[in-house]
Amino acid sequence: MSDERPIGVFDSGVGGLTVFREVMRRVPNEKLIYFGDTARLPYGTKSRDTVLGFARQIVRFLKTHDVKAIVVACNTASAYALDVIEQEEDIPFIGVVKPGAKVAAAATKNGRIGVIATTGTIKSGLYTDYIHSIDGSIKVFGKDCPLFVPLVEEGWFHDSVTKEVASRYLNELKGEFIDTLILGCTHYPLLRRTIAEEMGEDVTLVNPAYETALGLKAMLAEHGLEAAPKEQRPHHEFYVSDAAERFLTFAQAVLACELDSTAVVDIERY
Amino acid sequence: MSDERPIGVFDSGVGGLTVFREVMRRVPNEKLIYFGDTARLPYGTKSRDTVLGFARQIVRFLKTHDVKAIVVACNTASAYALDVIEQEEDIPFIGVVKPGAKVAAAATKNGRIGVIATTGTIKSGLYTDYIHSIDGSIKVFGKDCPLFVPLVEEGWFHDSVTKEVASRYLNELKGEFIDTLILGCTHYPLLRRTIAEEMGEDVTLVNPAYETALGLKAMLAEHGLEAAPKEQRPHHEFYVSDAAERFLTFAQAVLACELDSTAVVDIERY
Repeated sequence: MSDERPIGVFDSGVGGLTVFREVMRRVPNEKLIYFGDTARLPYGTKSRDTVLGFARQIVRFLKTHDVKAIVVACNTASAYALDVIEQEEDIPFIGVVKPGAKVAAAATKNGRIGVIATTGTIKSGLYTDYIHSIDGSIKVFGKDCPLFVPLVEEGWFHDSVTKEVASRYLNELKGEFIDTLILGCTHYPLLRRTIAEEMGEDVTLVNPAYETALGLKAMLAEHGLEAAPKEQRPHHEFYVSDAAERFLTFAQAVLACELDSTAVVDIERY
Repeated sequence: MSDERPIGVFDSGVGGLTVFREVMRRVPNEKLIYFGDTARLPYGTKSRDTVLGFARQIVRFLKTHDVKAIVVACNTASAYALDVIEQEEDIPFIGVVKPGAKVAAAATKNGRIGVIATTGTIKSGLYTDYIHSIDGSIKVFGKDCPLFVPLVEEGWFHDSVTKEVASRYLNELKGEFIDTLILGCTHYPLLRRTIAEEMGEDVTLVNPAYETALGLKAMLAEHGLEAAPKEQRPHHEFYVSDAAERFLTFAQAVLACELDSTAVVDIERY
């Protein structure tokens, strides 16, 4: 038995496309529906109730496409909304925080993990809390890197400016002798090479996008929700709440392919 | 006759503090009430109707403080809301777009003006439209500089990274032989020295914050709304819709003084 219904993937904007990319690679037979809430980003500065309300609207929208599972490809929504929505809905969900935190807790040998993310994520302490719920003895060092998202959105992935900014941001973490570093913002995997060069080869980089895609694959198998093998990749659909053009440019750079279809949705209606 | 009622100044966030600073200097006897809509920023990516709704709420809030005039210290709100709100209200308003555009149109000798701003402002063409309404023969060259706001918010005003980013952004405008450059985002006056060094001394920089403060001074005189001379500076009040702490740090850096009082307001209630 195979299940040909699509899988929903959502984020506050374009960052979740790095998760989408990993999901495409790990479960290539699945049709995906992406929603980026570009009209209401960023989520990181908004309250828990506001973010939960946004997530509920997006879930209602995705369910109009008859999705069989949902990937919350946004750190803030994973932290603020996932636990509540999972209880309210009858399909399985996976977020980006737990898979990344679990792998980091398993990977560290000296019990010292770094987390780099937006200011909102670092201040919320959500990675620290989840790592401590696994192992309270692990020391977690958070560092916000506010320029990383705009640098990624400029497309300056491997660049002298980005290298200098990374060097300044990561210097503090290097002084803490961490052996594992979580890329705690969905944009950051696009800076992976620069970050890896800066941290050196003794530090394991954890990419929650990759771990989430692996987790999704396991979840689909567990629930008997896998689609049948296909010769051609499925036709994916992309929706945003504003400015579809800018989204297109960024998405094509991240996914390195033409998008099948993109449309603007009035998300407040859901 | 003097009028001791305060003046309202509002922006989508912290950028309007550069306008606040100029207003403090030009009309030092006036008590000011600042509102920064930090929970709902950025405005530049939102629709005209949404921004107009936000501006109406903020005007209602400011009027609970019995303001005698309002400075719209936000480019997007000046473009999308000012004309409508002026008609609805019985107090005088001034925005940042028109004063800057007027001075630039008067300053250019070769009829070639550059505008640097956020992507939203550049795409809206609001400076271009207003300059053309003054003189249709002027050529306007817009360039968005997405990294400038986060660089300012990091406090990297005079910095090797900022210099390199400015060099890349401004290179295109230098090739257009502009003789006048509008700093079309309220954050950018804080990068004035770096921008001036990059453009060279033959290019006149227009700071709309400065021109707006001068315009406000004239407007108060014209309407007979000036406060009486004072020996001490008035007690200014600061309000934000979210994250007052981060606002405080930034405000103290921009204004170079301790803030008298800061409070968080639930702006959706107004």
